[in-house]
Amino acid sequence: MGVADWVRPEIGAMAGYQPGEQPAPGERVIKLNTNENPHPVPAEVLGAIREAAAAETLRRYPSPDAGAVRESAARAYGLAPDQVVVGNGSDDLLTMLLRTFVGPGAHVVAPAPTYSLYDTLTRIQGGTYREVPWGVGGSLLTRAITDADPALVFLTRPNAPFGFACDLGQVAALCRAVDAPVVLDEAYADFADDNGLGLLAEHPNLIVTRTFSKGFSLAGLRLGLGFAHPEVAEQLHKVRDSYNVDALAQAGAKAALDHLDAFRPNIEAVRQERARLTQALRQRGFGVADSQANFVFARVPDGDGAPWYRALKERGILVRHFPAEELAEGLRISVGTAEENDTLLTALDAIAEG
Amino acid sequence: MGVADWVRPEIGAMAGYQPGEQPAPGERVIKLNTNENPHPVPAEVLGAIREAAAAETLRRYPSPDAGAVRESAARAYGLAPDQVVVGNGSDDLLTMLLRTFVGPGAHVVAPAPTYSLYDTLTRIQGGTYREVPWGVGGSLLTRAITDADPALVFLTRPNAPFGFACDLGQVAALCRAVDAPVVLDEAYADFADDNGLGLLAEHPNLIVTRTFSKGFSLAGLRLGLGFAHPEVAEQLHKVRDSYNVDALAQAGAKAALDHLDAFRPNIEAVRQERARLTQALRQRGFGVADSQANFVFARVPDGDGAPWYRALKERGILVRHFPAEELAEGLRISVGTAEENDTLLTALDAIAEG
Repeated sequence: MGVADWVRPEIGAMAGYQPGEQPAPGERVIKLNTNENPHPVPAEVLGAIREAAAAETLRRYPSPDAGAVRESAARAYGLAPDQVVVGNGSDDLLTMLLRTFVGPGAHVVAPAPTYSLYDTLTRIQGGTYREVPWGVGGSLLTRAITDADPALVFLTRPNAPFGFACDLGQVAALCRAVDAPVVLDEAYADFADDNGLGLLAEHPNLIVTRTFSKGFSLAGLRLGLGFAHPEVAEQLHKVRDSYNVDALAQAGAKAALDHLDAFRPNIEAVRQERARLTQALRQRGFGVADSQANFVFARVPDGDGAPWYRALKERGILVRHFPAEELAEGLRISVGTAEENDTLLTALDAIAEG
Repeated sequence: MGVADWVRPEIGAMAGYQPGEQPAPGERVIKLNTNENPHPVPAEVLGAIREAAAAETLRRYPSPDAGAVRESAARAYGLAPDQVVVGNGSDDLLTMLLRTFVGPGAHVVAPAPTYSLYDTLTRIQGGTYREVPWGVGGSLLTRAITDADPALVFLTRPNAPFGFACDLGQVAALCRAVDAPVVLDEAYADFADDNGLGLLAEHPNLIVTRTFSKGFSLAGLRLGLGFAHPEVAEQLHKVRDSYNVDALAQAGAKAALDHLDAFRPNIEAVRQERARLTQALRQRGFGVADSQANFVFARVPDGDGAPWYRALKERGILVRHFPAEELAEGLRISVGTAEENDTLLTALDAIAEG
């Protein structure tokens, strides 16, 4: 009799997901490792959150299905409220998707490299996670995906950790080719030139997920949206925690969706800095692909990212280094403010000089 | 090809959990149906939440494992931080427990009537939910529970919807008798004369869950705590969403745990009103068992709760009526403020007079 005997074997055997490191409160670092937005949330959204922080609002349960947020989201994106599910972060939506569609032994398929949480969530469900490669230039290998017999497909667009966006026509073709739900994880779509929402009307198996953690500067509030066919949304609601999004997050989400224009300057600033950072890194001999997200993946000149990661950390700059073979040669760097990016570039120059 | 073909059969076949009805914003009702605390959260806790509502805090991801909350909880309850898991509401903890311990076909066992979410969560996992009766006077039928071959046992103490608290000695005996984790759901323990935290040291299979929605007047913020053996807590963290509790909820939770004394007057007021309401209902011919929670279950004089529920609703008073056979004769009534309880009693008198 002991803990190991009680735990499901899948859970006992797995390691938990490792989020990027968080500096301790008060620790002064330039944090370019978890793709937060470097700019503050607009004042009208902050005001709505503060206004909701009243004893009478906190005392009562929030709306179970975040009705007001769903209405604002539908208005903002040209959809119907019954196509919208609100999550406690988009990770919560990924969990709902796994629990709805993936039973023991079922296959979850994703072009990789991609977000490693898909693997963790699949293991928790007792499913099998199968990665297929991206085609040259970030194209989708549709046949490889269908051959892997998916119960669920994940496409990250823009992709992480590279930042490219696969072709939307290929996404549509995949939806037609596969007899399973296709999740288009658009965590970084706010920074991209286009997105997949326009495909929803024609593809009942397409589900688009969004987060407020990147474009909306609200990572601390935990908010995500799922857009799907109403019949799919209805199933997701069944496995959703009955009160999964708290009252303050609902207030912030509604205000953000009602004031999308207020976020444009921040997003435009990130896009401009992304172009400048990409150019500056290339001039220094880093290999940087064009990114549609709020980060860049930079292959270091000497092909081993680890010492660069450590040297930056010693200088108070956190970036992300993934030890997996195909990623180990680079660094994933969140686009910061102009000042943060300058500090990063200066540090890289100092490291290069040894 | 269609939605029904993609959804796991367990999910397709089930209905979602139905939370108690929420009045629309601005609707004026006396809300005694979901066991919220009628008193406002203390000022020091509200202040901490408001202070955390700053752009810089919201921009960044929160602490993944709510370290500061776990330290405060450990200090408040005389445990170690590695015995504490923080949830997005205690429902989130129940979900973690199911995902950690219950695989397809495994049995979840609970003395019933009890919280109907256990059934829903078991179905989502593909497990089998088995209810055993409570013994006379709310005693535990330990043999019935062990005979049901549980992978996980749920005990609600104080029980919902009746409000009695089974004997702690029986809880300890059950933990010894059963080779599976025993979850003591203490959502209402803040209003009770005693609780099961003292049993944790001796029983590695005991897990105690708490919520901030009842005693702490923070239902809108979604906060729960799980207390367990460190090895059990470690497994729960693996299936926890990586950032499951937002920054404002963490600030509120820490402040609440650091100021437990500030909640005592509210809790004492609820206990006093509970006694007065129980007495007043009995004088009117309702059958009311002694409650250790912040609600009472009142069997109506004529044995059919439904018309009483509807008549109260017409008068702007929401209580909970459960249609299941053994509960249909009564109403579950949250203990309100003295004024709310007086309004309820006056309304019941008017309904009785027809």
